[in-house]
Amino acid sequence: MKVGIIGAGRIGKVHARNISMYIPEIQIKTIVDPFMNKNMEQFAKKYGIPNITKDANDILNDPEIEAVLICSSTDTHAKYIIKAAKAGKHIFCEKPIDYDLKRVHEAIDAAKNAGVKLQIGFCRRFDHNHHAVYSMVRDGKVGKVNIIKISSRDPEPPSIDYVKVSGGIFYDMMIHDFDMARFLAGSEVTEVNAVGSVLVDPEIGKAGDVDTAVVTLKFENDAIGIIDNSRKAVYGYDQRVEVFGSEGCAFNNNDIPNTAVLCNEDRTSCENTYKVMWDRYTGAFVAEMHAFLDAIDNNKETLVTGVDGLYPVLMAAAATKSLKEGRPVKISEVE
Amino acid sequence: MKVGIIGAGRIGKVHARNISMYIPEIQIKTIVDPFMNKNMEQFAKKYGIPNITKDANDILNDPEIEAVLICSSTDTHAKYIIKAAKAGKHIFCEKPIDYDLKRVHEAIDAAKNAGVKLQIGFCRRFDHNHHAVYSMVRDGKVGKVNIIKISSRDPEPPSIDYVKVSGGIFYDMMIHDFDMARFLAGSEVTEVNAVGSVLVDPEIGKAGDVDTAVVTLKFENDAIGIIDNSRKAVYGYDQRVEVFGSEGCAFNNNDIPNTAVLCNEDRTSCENTYKVMWDRYTGAFVAEMHAFLDAIDNNKETLVTGVDGLYPVLMAAAATKSLKEGRPVKISEVE
Amino acid sequence: MKVGIIGAGRIGKVHARNISMYIPEIQIKTIVDPFMNKNMEQFAKKYGIPNITKDANDILNDPEIEAVLICSSTDTHAKYIIKAAKAGKHIFCEKPIDYDLKRVHEAIDAAKNAGVKLQIGFCRRFDHNHHAVYSMVRDGKVGKVNIIKISSRDPEPPSIDYVKVSGGIFYDMMIHDFDMARFLAGSEVTEVNAVGSVLVDPEIGKAGDVDTAVVTLKFENDAIGIIDNSRKAVYGYDQRVEVFGSEGCAFNNNDIPNTAVLCNEDRTSCENTYKVMWDRYTGAFVAEMHAFLDAIDNNKETLVTGVDGLYPVLMAAAATKSLKEGRPVKISEVE
Amino acid sequence: MKVGIIGAGRIGKVHARNISMYIPEIQIKTIVDPFMNKNMEQFAKKYGIPNITKDANDILNDPEIEAVLICSSTDTHAKYIIKAAKAGKHIFCEKPIDYDLKRVHEAIDAAKNAGVKLQIGFCRRFDHNHHAVYSMVRDGKVGKVNIIKISSRDPEPPSIDYVKVSGGIFYDMMIHDFDMARFLAGSEVTEVNAVGSVLVDPEIGKAGDVDTAVVTLKFENDAIGIIDNSRKAVYGYDQRVEVFGSEGCAFNNNDIPNTAVLCNEDRTSCENTYKVMWDRYTGAFVAEMHAFLDAIDNNKETLVTGVDGLYPVLMAAAATKSLKEGRPVKISEVE
Repeated sequence: MKVGIIGAGRIGKVHARNISMYIPEIQIKTIVDPFMNKNMEQFAKKYGIPNITKDANDILNDPEIEAVLICSSTDTHAKYIIKAAKAGKHIFCEKPIDYDLKRVHEAIDAAKNAGVKLQIGFCRRFDHNHHAVYSMVRDGKVGKVNIIKISSRDPEPPSIDYVKVSGGIFYDMMIHDFDMARFLAGSEVTEVNAVGSVLVDPEIGKAGDVDTAVVTLKFENDAIGIIDNSRKAVYGYDQRVEVFGSEGCAFNNNDIPNTAVLCNEDRTSCENTYKVMWDRYTGAFVAEMHAFLDAIDNNKETLVTGVDGLYPVLMAAAATKSLKEGRPVKISEVE
Repeated sequence: MKVGIIGAGRIGKVHARNISMYIPEIQIKTIVDPFMNKNMEQFAKKYGIPNITKDANDILNDPEIEAVLICSSTDTHAKYIIKAAKAGKHIFCEKPIDYDLKRVHEAIDAAKNAGVKLQIGFCRRFDHNHHAVYSMVRDGKVGKVNIIKISSRDPEPPSIDYVKVSGGIFYDMMIHDFDMARFLAGSEVTEVNAVGSVLVDPEIGKAGDVDTAVVTLKFENDAIGIIDNSRKAVYGYDQRVEVFGSEGCAFNNNDIPNTAVLCNEDRTSCENTYKVMWDRYTGAFVAEMHAFLDAIDNNKETLVTGVDGLYPVLMAAAATKSLKEGRPVKISEVE
Repeated sequence: MKVGIIGAGRIGKVHARNISMYIPEIQIKTIVDPFMNKNMEQFAKKYGIPNITKDANDILNDPEIEAVLICSSTDTHAKYIIKAAKAGKHIFCEKPIDYDLKRVHEAIDAAKNAGVKLQIGFCRRFDHNHHAVYSMVRDGKVGKVNIIKISSRDPEPPSIDYVKVSGGIFYDMMIHDFDMARFLAGSEVTEVNAVGSVLVDPEIGKAGDVDTAVVTLKFENDAIGIIDNSRKAVYGYDQRVEVFGSEGCAFNNNDIPNTAVLCNEDRTSCENTYKVMWDRYTGAFVAEMHAFLDAIDNNKETLVTGVDGLYPVLMAAAATKSLKEGRPVKISEVE
Repeated sequence: MKVGIIGAGRIGKVHARNISMYIPEIQIKTIVDPFMNKNMEQFAKKYGIPNITKDANDILNDPEIEAVLICSSTDTHAKYIIKAAKAGKHIFCEKPIDYDLKRVHEAIDAAKNAGVKLQIGFCRRFDHNHHAVYSMVRDGKVGKVNIIKISSRDPEPPSIDYVKVSGGIFYDMMIHDFDMARFLAGSEVTEVNAVGSVLVDPEIGKAGDVDTAVVTLKFENDAIGIIDNSRKAVYGYDQRVEVFGSEGCAFNNNDIPNTAVLCNEDRTSCENTYKVMWDRYTGAFVAEMHAFLDAIDNNKETLVTGVDGLYPVLMAAAATKSLKEGRPVKISEVE
C-alpha cells in the first residue's frame, strides 16, 4: 500500500521512520514539507521516500496513493480530512481533529460519507501495557467497572511559547487520558469536575494555563473516573492506568527499560522509566500503523474512530469550563 | 503505667490484647463492659486484666490509673474525653471524636486545659507502609508536594444495619483517608468535591449512602488530593498512598503476607493482600500504643492530636454536603 | 503448659521473650543460667519467669514441667535430650543435635523410646516466605521437582573467635540450607559437591574456614540442588529459595520491611531487607513454638523431627569432606 | 556498508530481517542458500536483498562486500572464517566457532593475521537486562565479584533428532551461559563441576544427553559461579543472572511483555515471560549487529572476540568430561 504524509514535523517524521523500518507492507510515496530544506532531503533518502513536495495536493491527487497520514498543525486537520475523504483516500489523522466541534463533525461526516477509514492518533490505546489492561477489562477479568484511575505525567513541560498556543493542559495533554478513560470504561462520560494548580512553573500560570490538574469523571453507567496530570515528573514518563471492578482490579506499573535490580548498602533499586516520548511509545506508534493497515486491508472499523476523536474534545471543553467556573460541568453543556 | 479501657467491643478488645501481648510497659488495670458476661471474664483472665466493671467512673476515679483508652460508641467519646481530662488522665480516643463540631471543640479544649495528652485513633499513620511514605515525604525526598493520591478499599461492606447508623461513607470510611491526606500533605484542605455511586449493593443506596466514592481535595498550598473508596474489593484490603512532588514520587504497593511467587503455564502470580483488618493493621495498632506511651513518658505532643481529630470530621461534613449538592464545598462552609 | 528453658544465651532469651509475648498458652516456669547475674533477674522479671537456676536438674526433675527447650551449647544438646527423654519431657532442641553422628543417633533413639516429642530448631521451615513456597510445592503447583536453588547470605561474618569453634561454614551456616533443601525436595540427598573461597575476610581463611561456599546436591529422585552462602551481604539478610519443576517454578523474593517505593531523578528504589536476624525471623521463631505446642497437644509428629536433625549434619560432613578433597562425596561415605 | 550472509537457515534469516528493518546503515547484497527455493526468493524480495546464490564464493570474491555473516552449520564456521579473513572481510560468526579446538585456534589466528574484525554471535551479552547487570558490575556497583548465578531455561526441548547432533546440552545450550559467566566475572574459569539428570524427556537420555544440568565454576580470582539449565520451563524462557559482590548484588528479573497486573479473588498475577526466542531476544540480535558495525566503523575491538568464542567451548568440553567422570575437571585438562 502506498501512502502520503502531510506534515513533516516531529510526529510526521516519527511515523515516516516507523513505517519505513517496521512495516514493509506500507510504502511512503510522498511527504509534504512546506520548507523542503536539506535535512528533509537527507531524511527522505535515508528512509526511502521518493517524493518531497510543498503541496498537499500532490498527495491528494495521486491515484496511486491509497491512504493519507495527516500530521500537520491541528488547525489544518479537519480541512485535510475533508479533502482526503473527497479524494477517496483512507485517513489517519493525528489528534485532536479540531477544537471547533462543528469542524469535528464535518470532518467525521466527510469520512463517513466517502466510505473511507478514519483513524485518530490516540496511540496509547496501542501501548503494550495499557492494551494489556484494556484486554483484561474487555475479557471480563475485573467484572463490572466501578472506578478508573489514570496517572499521566510528563518528564518536562513544553516551552512557554508552545503552552500559549496549546489550547491548555486539557486539550493538549489530558486529551490522551480522556480518550483512555472512555476506552477502558466502555461507557460515555456525562460530567467532569476539574481542579488545577500552577506548581511546576509560574510562567505557565502567566500564560493562562495550569501545569497540575486533576479531573473526576462521571460515566453513564455510574462508574467514576479520576485523571491526574503533571507537566513535570523528574523521574520520567509516568503512565499508569487502573480499572477497579466488581470482580477484581487490573492496573499497569510504569514501564522501565530493563529488569535489572541493584541491592547495595543503601537501597534496592532499579532504573527509572523513559524520559523521551519516542522511546516510551515506539511500540504504540508502530502498533497503531499496523492497526490502520489492518482496518483497510480487512475492511474493519478502526480501533480509534472519528467519534473517538470527538469525545475527548468535548471532555477537554467541559474540563476547561469546569476549572474556570469552579463547578462540575456536564458534557451536554458543551456539546 | 496503669491504664483503663472504656468500652469492650471489637476495638477495645483489640487494644487490650495488643497491650497485653506486645507492650509490657503498660498494664491494663480495669476494663469497662456494660454487659460483663462470661466471655468477658475469660478474655480478662487470658490477658491478665484484674478488674471488669460496668461503671466508667471506676476508671476515672482510680488514682492509680494514669491514662484512659476510650473505645466506647462514638456518641460517648466527647463526654469521656471531658471527664478523663478533668480527672487528669491522659487520653487515647478512638476516631471520630464526635460528629458535632461544637462537642469536638469542647473535648479538645478540655484536654488542652487539663494539660493531658490526647491522641486520636487514626492508626494508619503508624502503618509500616504508609509511615515509610510519610517519612520519605517529611525527609524531603519528593520535594514540594504537588499531588496526593489515596486508594482505600475494603474487602466487604458492613451490614446494612451498620450502614444506616454509620453516618455515611465519608464519616465512617473515608475519614481515615481524610486524615492520611492531611498527614502526608503537611497542609490543610480548603475545599472538597465529592462524587459517589451505588455500585456494590443497591441496599446501601436504599439506606441513603453510596458505596463507591471519589473526592478531590484542594490544599492551602495549592497541592491537589484524590481519594477513592470502595466498600468491596474482592481481592482484600487495598490501601495505597502516593505523594508526587517536585523532586520525585513516593508510594506504597499494597501489602501482601509473603513474597512467594509462582510461575506456571498460565501466569506469574503471588498471594493476595489481607482480608481481615486485624491481620492487616496489627502492626499499626501496636505502634500507635507505643507512640501514646512515648508521648506521655517523654512529654511530647502526640502524633495524632485533638486537632487532627477535628479536621477529618470537617472534611467528611464538606464531602457529604458536596455529594448532596453536586458542587465543590469549602471547608469554611462547614466550620 | 509449663516449660523449662536450659540455656539463657542469645537464642534462649529469644525463645523466652517470644513465648512470654506471643504464646499465652505456654508458661515458662524455670530457666537455667549458669551465671545468674542481675541482668538475668531483670530479664526473668520482665517476662514473668518465676525461677532462675544454675542446675538443669531443677527442670528435669520438676514434675510440673511438661516440656524442655534446650538452648545450651551444642556439645550439651545430646546429653540433655537423653536426660529429658528419660524424664518423660517433650523436647525442643536447637540445631544441630551434635556433630558426632553416634551421639545424634543416641539422642534420637532416646526420644523415640521414651515416646516424647522431639523438635529441632530449624526455624526457617516456619518462615512466612519459605513456608509459602513449601506449601505450593507440596500442593503440586510446580509438579515434579527438578531443580532447587537456595541463596543464604548473612549481613556480617561472626567474630573470628566464633568462626574457630563453629565447626565451619557447612555446620554453622549452610546447615539451615541443607535442611531447607530436603524440606523442599521431599527426597533425600545422595551426594554433595562443595566449592569454597575466602573472599570476605582473610582471617576466616587463617582460621581454617571459607566465607563463601557453593554446594551442589544430587537427590535420590534425580533432582539437583544448589546452595550458595556468603558470610557478608552488605544489603542485609538474603534468604531466597526457588523450586523449579515440571509444571512451574515457585520462589520467594527477599523480605523487605515495607512496600514503599521512591522514584526520584536517579532511580526507583525501595528499602533494603533486614540486617538483624531477630527482626528477620521473629515470625518463624514464634511459629515454630506454636507448632511444637500443637504437636504435643494433638499428639502429632513434629514438623522437624530428630531425623530431620540428623541429615543436615550428614550433609555438612560430606560437604566438609568434599571441599577438602576437591571431589563429590556421597552421603553414604560419611554415615 | 554492504554485507553478505552465508547461510539462510533460521538464524541467517533472523539477521537478514533485523538488518533490513532496523539498521539502514547496512545493506545485504548477497545471501547464500544451497536450496534457493521460492520461499527464499520471496524472503529476499521482501527484505530488499538483491542476490541469492548457492556459492559462498560469490560473497567472498565480491570486492564491494566489506563484511560477512557466517550463519551456516557449525562444521563450516571455521572454514568460512579462514576464507573470509583471507579475502580481507570483517566477520560475524554464529557460535560456536567449532568443537575442535585446533580449528578454533586456526580460525582466530586467520582473522588476527588478516587484521579483520571477528565477532562471535553470543547475543545475550547485548540483551537489555543482562547488559544492564553487566554495566552495573563493570561500573563497580557490586564491588569485587564473589558469586555469579545464572539460570537459563528453555520453553521446550528441541527435537530428539536435533539433540542427537547437538553435541550435548553443554555445547548446545549452556555455552551461552558459559560465555555470560566469563562476561560478568571479568575473570577466567579454571575448573568446572557438572551434575546432570534426565527429568524432562527419557528420549533425551536415550540419545545420550541430559536435559537438566547444574555446573559450578571456579574462577581465577576465586569467585564461584553456578549455572542451571533445563530444557523445559512450562512458563517460557527463564533467563536470569545475578552477580553478588563485596559492595552489593545486581540481578535481573525475568523479562515480561507488559507491566499489567490483575488482582482477583484468587491471586495477584501478571503475564508470563516469552515463549519464542525471537520475541525474547529481538533487541539483543539487533544490538549485536549495531555493535559489529560500530567495531568496524570505529576500528574498535568487538565486544565478543574470537577468544571469547574459544573459552565457552573449553568450558563445555570440561563440563562434558566432568559429567561423564563424576568429578571436577580443570580447564587445563581440556585445552
